Amino acid sequence: MIYAPDIMRGLETFRETIDNIDSAIIHMLAERFRCTQDVGRLKAKQNMPVKDSGREAAQVTRLRSLANGAGLDPDFAERFHAFVVEEVIRQHTAIRMRTDSAI
Amino acid sequence: MIYAPDIMRGLETFRETIDNIDSAIIHMLAERFRCTQDVGRLKAKQNMPVKDSGREAAQVTRLRSLANGAGLDPDFAERFHAFVVEEVIRQHTAIRMRTDSAI
Repeated sequence: MIYAPDIMRGLETFRETIDNIDSAIIHMLAERFRCTQDVGRLKAKQNMPVKDSGREAAQVTRLRSLANGAGLDPDFAERFHAFVVEEVIRQHTAIRMRTDSAI
Repeated sequence: MIYAPDIMRGLETFRETIDNIDSAIIHMLAERFRCTQDVGRLKAKQNMPVKDSGREAAQVTRLRSLANGAGLDPDFAERFHAFVVEEVIRQHTAIRMRTDSAI
């Protein structure tokens, strides 16, 4: 189906904004994992548990509140947090296994 | 278990950085969904399909390349994209249903 040029230009403008926002998020996520990898190494060295339920609950409360203020669905913010934490725990477990095998 | 104060301070410093990064990401996501909701309304008005596989493939290629440059696992970037697009499609379908029922 063919759409009017002004409709396609409007869509293209939205997509350029979405692409810019995605670039920012990818770089923020890269920096976040650099930081959590440092946390993983610290925890492995100190033999701290990989998972911290108290910290995770506090993060969820904080992110839901931030989402509310920003007009983002708080349930989506909570699912986003769970999605990221799953990857963090996967990485921390891998760091722990490498640390243990280096002893 | 009790850990040395300097260890706990080190952990706390990492967590403050992570919290700041999360705040930035939540606000970026809020703005991203504001933009995709505009796209959803435009598509509904023009009766355009909700899903655009060509656009999605181009986004994945771009995000994987950005992730590579930023030191983020490209597979994680692709999973993040799929996670966000799933929510966008859910929202666009809801917008479409509201638009159709308003006719």
